[in-house]
Amino acid sequence: MAPQSVRLRIDLAYDGGGFRGFARQADQRTVQGVLEAALLTLCGAAVETTVAGRTDAGVHAARQVVHCDVPASARCVGDLERMRHALDRLCGDDVTVWRVRRVPASFDARFSATQRQYRYRLCDAVAMDPLWRYTTWHVGQPSLDAPAMEAGGRNLLGEHVFASFCRKREGDALLRRVDRVAVRRRAGGLVTVDVEGAAFCHQMVRSIVGSLVQVGSGKQPPAWVADVLAARDRSVAGPVAPPHGLTLVGVRY
Amino acid sequence: MAPQSVRLRIDLAYDGGGFRGFARQADQRTVQGVLEAALLTLCGAAVETTVAGRTDAGVHAARQVVHCDVPASARCVGDLERMRHALDRLCGDDVTVWRVRRVPASFDARFSATQRQYRYRLCDAVAMDPLWRYTTWHVGQPSLDAPAMEAGGRNLLGEHVFASFCRKREGDALLRRVDRVAVRRRAGGLVTVDVEGAAFCHQMVRSIVGSLVQVGSGKQPPAWVADVLAARDRSVAGPVAPPHGLTLVGVRY
Repeated sequence: MAPQSVRLRIDLAYDGGGFRGFARQADQRTVQGVLEAALLTLCGAAVETTVAGRTDAGVHAARQVVHCDVPASARCVGDLERMRHALDRLCGDDVTVWRVRRVPASFDARFSATQRQYRYRLCDAVAMDPLWRYTTWHVGQPSLDAPAMEAGGRNLLGEHVFASFCRKREGDALLRRVDRVAVRRRAGGLVTVDVEGAAFCHQMVRSIVGSLVQVGSGKQPPAWVADVLAARDRSVAGPVAPPHGLTLVGVRY
Repeated sequence: MAPQSVRLRIDLAYDGGGFRGFARQADQRTVQGVLEAALLTLCGAAVETTVAGRTDAGVHAARQVVHCDVPASARCVGDLERMRHALDRLCGDDVTVWRVRRVPASFDARFSATQRQYRYRLCDAVAMDPLWRYTTWHVGQPSLDAPAMEAGGRNLLGEHVFASFCRKREGDALLRRVDRVAVRRRAGGLVTVDVEGAAFCHQMVRSIVGSLVQVGSGKQPPAWVADVLAARDRSVAGPVAPPHGLTLVGVRY
């Protein structure tokens, strides 16, 4: 951090539907692109952001966390609630800025995070409320067996090499820790899958959900998930669940 | 009803955001237009629909009811679950057809209905989850006083001339009965207003909500709602609440 700058933590939400994911990309509308453009406008200087949980195109966030360093001389730093409001407006309808606060330079949105919490929404009713289509994967019939899905998910708890559930990136050992997989049936054919862990690799939650749907629909027994994990081979897992059912719901520090 | 026809009841939902309301209009995308076009395709004959609760542009329905008469010779009548599925697909992503069933010729979606139930969603948090923007009016600060709103709403219970809360239509006495007004505070700054009654006139629920917001924000006391009702003058009511917060949630027969 430059000596004349102030570190800010920004808590935000977004509807992933209109974005090519979080990470900045040339010529694509991304959350980071929109946020950094707004910060440039407000602070009068280029500001780089670091995010807790990078999300893919179409994935939502209810509670995402970002940090950035802003020149201490920038006027926006003087009133952070006003800055929050201005950022919120500049980022458009599909982004909400919950809070902007000053944090010590030791705070890192990515590396200080101890846990990421995701929720995936599935619907197995024959027909689904059309307002759910933005946030819910309509898997349709047959009904999902939620307890079987949760039993399958228990095989993933703890620290493992999640190669079967990740899109490989260069030089990543894919060793990750999963703390919780909870599958609950709710009203209207809704089934939620909550997955919490220290960190996740690329497409890991959607890949876990895709495999749990194989179990929930009776195509595989719960113990099959342990076999998939042990194989360390992406081709044996279920198909990756679509992005619009997934929301990053929280980050713990 | 023509002797050679079969009366069907269709239960459906729609996301009002992409429609110019329920009622058919030339050169506009409406729910009735989409539904009747689908029925024409399926039945091979023009089919007119009658609806329980006509909704305005932007208003949603979770449980809307329609009836129509279909030629008894139409093939689609032979398998109503198959017909439901086909209708659901033909009507597009923002309409869901829950059910199609045969009903006696005495059933009338509009005139047999004894009660319509509406829910309006408001949010008074400083910032609102962006995924709520399709279904929730973000009134922002100051916080709404939900018990005061409910107390205001109690003045509307029973049978009254609702001229202050309705966009007048030719020859309508605007005599209506309201059975329930319930205002509840929920998580995330959400406040729901449930309004149930025998029937409603044009913009009546949105107009009631607009006036209750005047009470909830402290601009008017609860008893003011009784004055508005007694005035029988639309100009004294609060501004009409925007359509996207309103959903027809049920119809009773």
